Amino acid sequence: MTPLDPQALGRRAEAMLEELAAISAAPDQLIRLFLTPEHRRAAKLVAQWMGEAGLEVSEDALGNVRGKIGQGPRLLLGSHIDSVINAGIYDGPLGVVAPILAVDALKRAGMKLPALELLVFGDEEGSRFPSTLSTSAAIAGAFDRKQLELKDSNGVTYAEALRAYGKNPDEISRAAIPRGEAAAWLEVHIEQGPILESKNEPLGVVTAIAGQTRLSLTLTGEAGHAGTVPMVLRRDALAGAAEIALLAERIAREVGDHMVATVGRMEVKPGAVNIIPAEARCTLDLRSPSDAARKAAIQRFVQEAHAIAARRKLTVRTEPIHEIATTPCDLELQKRLAKAVEAVSASAVRLPSGAGHDGLMLSKICPIAMLFVRCKGGVSHNPAEYASPADMGLAIAALVRFIENFGARP
Amino acid sequence: MTPLDPQALGRRAEAMLEELAAISAAPDQLIRLFLTPEHRRAAKLVAQWMGEAGLEVSEDALGNVRGKIGQGPRLLLGSHIDSVINAGIYDGPLGVVAPILAVDALKRAGMKLPALELLVFGDEEGSRFPSTLSTSAAIAGAFDRKQLELKDSNGVTYAEALRAYGKNPDEISRAAIPRGEAAAWLEVHIEQGPILESKNEPLGVVTAIAGQTRLSLTLTGEAGHAGTVPMVLRRDALAGAAEIALLAERIAREVGDHMVATVGRMEVKPGAVNIIPAEARCTLDLRSPSDAARKAAIQRFVQEAHAIAARRKLTVRTEPIHEIATTPCDLELQKRLAKAVEAVSASAVRLPSGAGHDGLMLSKICPIAMLFVRCKGGVSHNPAEYASPADMGLAIAALVRFIENFGARP
Repeated sequence: MTPLDPQALGRRAEAMLEELAAISAAPDQLIRLFLTPEHRRAAKLVAQWMGEAGLEVSEDALGNVRGKIGQGPRLLLGSHIDSVINAGIYDGPLGVVAPILAVDALKRAGMKLPALELLVFGDEEGSRFPSTLSTSAAIAGAFDRKQLELKDSNGVTYAEALRAYGKNPDEISRAAIPRGEAAAWLEVHIEQGPILESKNEPLGVVTAIAGQTRLSLTLTGEAGHAGTVPMVLRRDALAGAAEIALLAERIAREVGDHMVATVGRMEVKPGAVNIIPAEARCTLDLRSPSDAARKAAIQRFVQEAHAIAARRKLTVRTEPIHEIATTPCDLELQKRLAKAVEAVSASAVRLPSGAGHDGLMLSKICPIAMLFVRCKGGVSHNPAEYASPADMGLAIAALVRFIENFGARP
Repeated sequence: MTPLDPQALGRRAEAMLEELAAISAAPDQLIRLFLTPEHRRAAKLVAQWMGEAGLEVSEDALGNVRGKIGQGPRLLLGSHIDSVINAGIYDGPLGVVAPILAVDALKRAGMKLPALELLVFGDEEGSRFPSTLSTSAAIAGAFDRKQLELKDSNGVTYAEALRAYGKNPDEISRAAIPRGEAAAWLEVHIEQGPILESKNEPLGVVTAIAGQTRLSLTLTGEAGHAGTVPMVLRRDALAGAAEIALLAERIAREVGDHMVATVGRMEVKPGAVNIIPAEARCTLDLRSPSDAARKAAIQRFVQEAHAIAARRKLTVRTEPIHEIATTPCDLELQKRLAKAVEAVSASAVRLPSGAGHDGLMLSKICPIAMLFVRCKGGVSHNPAEYASPADMGLAIAALVRFIENFGARP
């Protein structure tokens, strides 16, 4: 077994994350968008680290930095180096730095590595183009070429940006890894939620990437004078929307099992202090690691929302915005990952991922797994995002154990 | 008694209202703002009608058109000719046209009129300057000279607009009617609500102009990822605001007695489909013809809103925006007005006015009364505003009876 010093690994990870975080489009906040000069600089730095760890480095037609060792069906590891606007330094890069350090530790210990490939994606957050996961989609052979026409806020298309980055859009299909060559996908990522913190555990094994349904709702009533229309004769669209927002919350609480429901937007017309609202628009985002539970909850929500509207003599229109099925993590991989976690830490918490990740795409070609690392207050997509060097060190140590055992796979 | 033909009076009123409605700043909608060329043209037309009805017409320093008959303490009648943007044709002008036609009918019948003065105001809606009721305030000797510095949306001050209208701001105090010279104030107005329609009655006697309290509320929670923060760990500001909006509705319904509560604005930050709301701002407008009931309701609302926020680990800040006490209508005048209504129609419905009116100011110098006329669907401040000629005719007939009896006052 490779000798490990999780504390030292964690400190190295933190130093590398800080070096990467210095590469930003703004001096005072972290902004690193797909196919920008910052993407190029970050890719270059990561490629250097990967080379130093002994990986054979290349770049594909989407700018994904890739580092291979060995032959045959391989373990895929990695994450993304693009960021949201005003990001934290851990979301994405931790999943790049951790396998680099794990491979390095294994190499230094003279261990024989299994065939593996480290993948460093550039379009996970969707902060530049209205696309997400397009770079991992290409790896899975699922890149949608219509995305090449998408424009960024300056009117630059995805295809133009690719060419400016030195890439040829015609070669995207070559980025794909055939199904038989991918043994598994494992990503290390901060939790982006407060479950591990609340359980006082540093590491978690993800059970599934939760499915999502997003709806927009428009309630229509009748505007009226706030002073002259009696309560019983009102058709107040906002009052109806308020009831529906609380309905969403109640359903998620009643169902439990990691279901979450959020009404994140609410717009009211005409929106004057002394006018009864004629229209309220709001959104629902409902997620669950069980597709059956999510679908049942959405059905109940829509049905009860219509009942609320009918009782209030409002009309309600619901429109689907977005729908993604649950992507379960492979049970065998979960077991192996839990064993690796238990070898370095107390216990492996099982929890779903409420956020989407590149694993959604990788699941098209191989079984997937994710290792979550505790983050402070559950905060992410924010400069206050934080994971301790101690926790990151444990994650890298667990990853080392996982890779060792993966090599010993029957 | 003056012979009356309500149908004919109603038709004349409608024709006059339509003539007045043609005076607008826009070709396709009714916009008549204070101290504008449209105000001038409307004032001129109204002055002409008043002269034809035998009133001695003048204009004061605020542009109020005034028409007197007789000496000594006088009955004050009238309403306003300014409008909201995209107004209906009845709100205001009906209370100008009705007394002109009533005086005309009494004159034609050779009846001796009591001393009276018709007042035609220009700033009731507050559509040009951030002021309201400033023209009736001047009549009541309560004009606030700080208003002269208020600016319209073009940066023109109230004082500049007055001078451009040919008026001298230094003479405003002379517009005041001393307390001893005002016997009573009576305004005819559309109801602006659906109560008369729902009771199938054309006319109503107003019991009071409801007091109002307006508050703004800011709820602060914590933003978070819609997928990763469990329901029990959320501090969702919108969910709290939704509960508070329903609380306002519940209080008004439970109290009854014409109390109305409206949450007309709701703004959510950050306002993204996949982020738990960190902040929600909303407003409350609560009205009641009883100050005691209103104050108790506000106290209960604020207390329960804080309890809701505390339970949800949110903070809530409430700020007063606006507060007006209830202005009761004079009981003796209500009785006389009800008698006049009953002389021409079936029964006189008693109801409060949820909207504010110039009577708020006139109440400072004399007892006040208001006669409400049924309007279609309770709609006002809207081109769909409508009162039937038949109902307007009955209102004018009732006004004739009221003036006759007022003259016979002991």
